[in-house]
Amino acid sequence: MSDRPRFSFAVSARCGAARTGAISMMRGEIRTPAFMPVGTAATVKAMKPRDVRAAGADIILGNTYHLMLRPGAERMARLGGLHAFMGWDRPILTDSGGYQVMSLSELRKMSEEGVSFKSHLDGSAHMLTPERSMEIQRLLGSDIVMAFDECTSWPATREDAAASMERSMRWARRSRDGFDAGEAHAARAALFGIQQGSMFEDLRRTSSDKLIDIGFDGYAVGGLAVGEGQAEMFRVLDFAVAMLPEDRPRYLMGVGKPDDIVGAVERGIDMFDCVLPTRSGRTGQAFTRDGPINIKNARFAEDQAPLDPECGCPVCATWSRAYLHHLIRSGEILGAMLMTEHNVNFYQDLMQGLRDAIADGRLPAHADAFRARYGRSKGEAGC
Amino acid sequence: MSDRPRFSFAVSARCGAARTGAISMMRGEIRTPAFMPVGTAATVKAMKPRDVRAAGADIILGNTYHLMLRPGAERMARLGGLHAFMGWDRPILTDSGGYQVMSLSELRKMSEEGVSFKSHLDGSAHMLTPERSMEIQRLLGSDIVMAFDECTSWPATREDAAASMERSMRWARRSRDGFDAGEAHAARAALFGIQQGSMFEDLRRTSSDKLIDIGFDGYAVGGLAVGEGQAEMFRVLDFAVAMLPEDRPRYLMGVGKPDDIVGAVERGIDMFDCVLPTRSGRTGQAFTRDGPINIKNARFAEDQAPLDPECGCPVCATWSRAYLHHLIRSGEILGAMLMTEHNVNFYQDLMQGLRDAIADGRLPAHADAFRARYGRSKGEAGC
Repeated sequence: MSDRPRFSFAVSARCGAARTGAISMMRGEIRTPAFMPVGTAATVKAMKPRDVRAAGADIILGNTYHLMLRPGAERMARLGGLHAFMGWDRPILTDSGGYQVMSLSELRKMSEEGVSFKSHLDGSAHMLTPERSMEIQRLLGSDIVMAFDECTSWPATREDAAASMERSMRWARRSRDGFDAGEAHAARAALFGIQQGSMFEDLRRTSSDKLIDIGFDGYAVGGLAVGEGQAEMFRVLDFAVAMLPEDRPRYLMGVGKPDDIVGAVERGIDMFDCVLPTRSGRTGQAFTRDGPINIKNARFAEDQAPLDPECGCPVCATWSRAYLHHLIRSGEILGAMLMTEHNVNFYQDLMQGLRDAIADGRLPAHADAFRARYGRSKGEAGC
Repeated sequence: MSDRPRFSFAVSARCGAARTGAISMMRGEIRTPAFMPVGTAATVKAMKPRDVRAAGADIILGNTYHLMLRPGAERMARLGGLHAFMGWDRPILTDSGGYQVMSLSELRKMSEEGVSFKSHLDGSAHMLTPERSMEIQRLLGSDIVMAFDECTSWPATREDAAASMERSMRWARRSRDGFDAGEAHAARAALFGIQQGSMFEDLRRTSSDKLIDIGFDGYAVGGLAVGEGQAEMFRVLDFAVAMLPEDRPRYLMGVGKPDDIVGAVERGIDMFDCVLPTRSGRTGQAFTRDGPINIKNARFAEDQAPLDPECGCPVCATWSRAYLHHLIRSGEILGAMLMTEHNVNFYQDLMQGLRDAIADGRLPAHADAFRARYGRSKGEAGC
């Protein structure tokens, strides 16, 4: 820990709706806009923490659902918490488990109390409630705790979206109370609320008002990147972001492709997470300034250029596309390692470029140049 | 390259039959006794070359059979050779492909000319002969080239062992001629011959005499670690090693467990290779000064000690057994990475300990102390 405050957010420059600045927490500074590599099971897959940090990451994300099942929250606490366990001493944001319990677990049953389910690993029975989610995130030693909510599925009728949002807001209240009850942890950590309301402007407004009334350190935009596509996501962000407090960080959960991130930063988002750079790296997709490439393609078999000729990462400094092609085609672990490291560096470079462009007041030109070269994404917005 | 000679071997100290010294080659010094991590498909699996070097490795091994099939020897040459391809600028020893073509390929047919076979990857037809093996190892840019031979299967009758050895000796002659024909490469690289003769002293003697008559830079003991067990392997080494020239490095191929290595060093062996530290690391076996442990065992779930409390490697400096237990149980790539890195460090530390003990004239006590603590291996000698 340090002399830094529990949680503060300072904007140092703005450009249109976009802003750049820093969140200061006891375990370190988080430069914004920030991209958080995902460390699902107490590891950013295929990377050492040292290399994640060297790429420029100030914060990583851990998954409550995975960690509560293995190694288990109480066990993690006995082992000194997630930071000591995995060897990452900077801030960690943990999700609430709400999203993954619905997408990964078996025999789940939702009620006003919470969600009961069976582990996808061993069938053991568990219950996640706002109170238990807060307790687990406390046991993990999380720096930024996410409120327990329901990610409204898409598409949703207005009626279903409203009912789901209203439940999430009741759970947000219970999350706030549960978080505050852990006094020693609450004195070191921050709690973020999550706006819901699907694609409906009035529901997003109601959700924001309720969250602001409860009061959180930061606010996430939830329920996007669920299949609606980039245009619809941007349409929602165009009204949803401005509803959130100007002086608090805004986090777009589960996003996304590089051009999703650029567009969301232009709309005022400060924080992102996505498995895309890590997951797609393991299967052979490399991000480059000219768009993504699939390194397994036969045209790379004798290509001596680095993955991205303008990239300064340790992978591009040493190895060729031909070598990565060989490793990924051969199923070699080193292929997953190097592709992941490059992609994590690419994402951090992307964020640094956006921060610099905002600070210099040239974000529109920077974003347009990025898009012209990278190409508009043809697929879905999320990851 | 450098001002170093093509190949020289200097013994700096002896202790009984054991010796320590260094091989000097253009790409670097190789301290002996040396253990060579295996980099089958142009990668020491799950490790960056930087970390292999940091562990103390002066040389790695590459597999001709794997590399000729993927990416292919001619392609590798067009890409600048194996060193540039994988980012390892120190010496590389390549095997001849003879062992793996017999154990891995399909539809193989052996004749006096060589071995025709179909790739286990795509069924494509290939032919390996002494001449082609030399050509492939030249195209790869190998520093230490191994003669193409037949690894006599075990157990073998005296008659079969003699016939197999005689063919290997005719192939050794053709290997020498093939190697020398590649003049530019032969001016930079070394060629090792391989003693055969199964478990028969007179056949080992005949093989050695024929090899010495041809003349090689170094001599391997082949045909051991094939299922005969440690006691039988040591019995053969007790007469086989002394048949080889005193002033040349002696390489025991495919060995082995830590206590195999200690016993072979006591019998005068200078070089080793084995997949054991890398392969077993990926499946959860860690080598420690108190013997191997299986990190998946439930007793390690909350064990906060490092893999080996006396180990100074980067893994033991940072992570606990509990964390490695979690990673390997979860099938995480980082688990394979860290277990491999520890094991490669353990093997290099083992060799440094042996080199120091020989230099200080205390090898017998050192070896006895190692065995007393590590425990005698109960299984087969090989890897």
